[in-house]
Amino acid sequence: MLGIEEIGSYIPGDRVSNYDRKEKFGIDDFFIEEKIGVKAVSRKAESEETSDLCVAAFNDLVTRSDLKDEEIEVLVVVTQNPDYRIPHVSAMVHGRLALPETCACFDVSLGCSGFVYGLSVITSFMNQNGLKKGVLITCDPYSKVVDPDDKNTALLFGDAASATLISDRPKLVPGRFTFGTLGSEHDKLIAKDSLYMNGRAVFNFAAKTVPPDIEKMLAANGIKVEELDRLLLHQGSKIIVETIAKKLGLSLDKVPYNICDFGNSCASTIPLLLQRELSDDTVKLLAMSGFGVGLSWASGLLRRV
Amino acid sequence: MLGIEEIGSYIPGDRVSNYDRKEKFGIDDFFIEEKIGVKAVSRKAESEETSDLCVAAFNDLVTRSDLKDEEIEVLVVVTQNPDYRIPHVSAMVHGRLALPETCACFDVSLGCSGFVYGLSVITSFMNQNGLKKGVLITCDPYSKVVDPDDKNTALLFGDAASATLISDRPKLVPGRFTFGTLGSEHDKLIAKDSLYMNGRAVFNFAAKTVPPDIEKMLAANGIKVEELDRLLLHQGSKIIVETIAKKLGLSLDKVPYNICDFGNSCASTIPLLLQRELSDDTVKLLAMSGFGVGLSWASGLLRRV
Repeated sequence: MLGIEEIGSYIPGDRVSNYDRKEKFGIDDFFIEEKIGVKAVSRKAESEETSDLCVAAFNDLVTRSDLKDEEIEVLVVVTQNPDYRIPHVSAMVHGRLALPETCACFDVSLGCSGFVYGLSVITSFMNQNGLKKGVLITCDPYSKVVDPDDKNTALLFGDAASATLISDRPKLVPGRFTFGTLGSEHDKLIAKDSLYMNGRAVFNFAAKTVPPDIEKMLAANGIKVEELDRLLLHQGSKIIVETIAKKLGLSLDKVPYNICDFGNSCASTIPLLLQRELSDDTVKLLAMSGFGVGLSWASGLLRRV
Repeated sequence: MLGIEEIGSYIPGDRVSNYDRKEKFGIDDFFIEEKIGVKAVSRKAESEETSDLCVAAFNDLVTRSDLKDEEIEVLVVVTQNPDYRIPHVSAMVHGRLALPETCACFDVSLGCSGFVYGLSVITSFMNQNGLKKGVLITCDPYSKVVDPDDKNTALLFGDAASATLISDRPKLVPGRFTFGTLGSEHDKLIAKDSLYMNGRAVFNFAAKTVPPDIEKMLAANGIKVEELDRLLLHQGSKIIVETIAKKLGLSLDKVPYNICDFGNSCASTIPLLLQRELSDDTVKLLAMSGFGVGLSWASGLLRRV
């Protein structure tokens, strides 16, 4: 059975402090620490491209596993900020890593729901095509599209990447997933030129849509919410994570929040959380839910093998 | 079993004649008719966006089938020329068509191999998640990135879109597929700003890589090349289609070529060919192979139910 064997990650070292921007944006410590819950956002170097972040996360994965490049049969990159329009980032990463010619490569264009969707896409593709080793990368450096003068986005989004090894020697295996789209609201989070976000509309959407979707996903798996050891929510902001946890009646020790020092890295937030849980054998049953750009959402269950 | 039930398409009505550009580019009728095999390329209107072409192809699909919008459980758009960087085109199309909130939507970023890859991605996603009705759209209007003064690309690429209904009432079902990537050559077909193509390098890649990949795919399906009723090749140019057919020992009446009046529409070329074959019950066994941007390739078998 296919599932998650290991996770690598990369968070660029540079930080832009939100405390240094209090006056510029007219915000206070409460806003920084309790509302958005982001003290600083990570920033890639000007010279770093999306494919560079992907390669860095992949290299971290290699140090954590005995993965050999020549074993990789499929590479999927989830991004909406590719190096170039053409080609896909996965082909560029394939070239940089000198992966085998038999390796299938494609990108999936999704935002904050992208890891949950991507996990279903890559495992189903691998099952159907009889593949045993695949890598799912998430990388969406929003610094490429964020206007530094836009209060709604500049304080929130940080750059990061993750690389998840999917194999037939998994630590966690996926159960049933649920998916959804509210395309009529796509203009609430859009990058025609720089990124525009209607923060209130996106918050209201997530608070309304995500809790019942998680309940629906749990029901499809025959699981009650109190049986969960962890719920890994897309780290949209501190307030949205706490709001969803509260609506589901889950205490915050089961719903981790970890982005205060680097910000919301879009599709990478869930694998960054999951990386820590992977090595904790006491965590047997995890749910996850991603939501955002589209508007789009996806929830799924993971069980320890 | 899931497979292809119906295919809709849209080719914009405007044409740019290659005969009118003979002097500008220093080309003759032989080059137009026998080498690239494109007399005119289709052009979307300035005001038409990628999502508009997708909706037009979807609407054609609806006229050819009894598909109801509320039945659609997944919508995948294959494109490298989205309306905007964020969000994905599938979410915009979802909104325009008012599809159900339970419909999963994502884009796949791939070029000329995109339909074959996309067919495997959507059918495996549907199988794993228990879905019965999905739509796979291809739409890559290269007029958005082609420099009209670039001889290598301006005479070749036309705009089009396709919409394929995947369902549990299929006319054609997929067999085994093969995939490959040569990421080290990704810079041979790239759009940093406008599109750049090293035509000779891409031709040589396809002529060398595609025939053995089709043979490998046929062997995986236990099929001999002479058993095929049709081989549907990505319509890169007339000369590449004829070269690959010849290398495989297939006569050209089994390897259709249809782009002389509208040009190479990237991932849409194979579904545009397949649309005609779908209604011909004498065509029982088809192979298809897409190749290009990445560099990337994919081959697959289709059998009539």
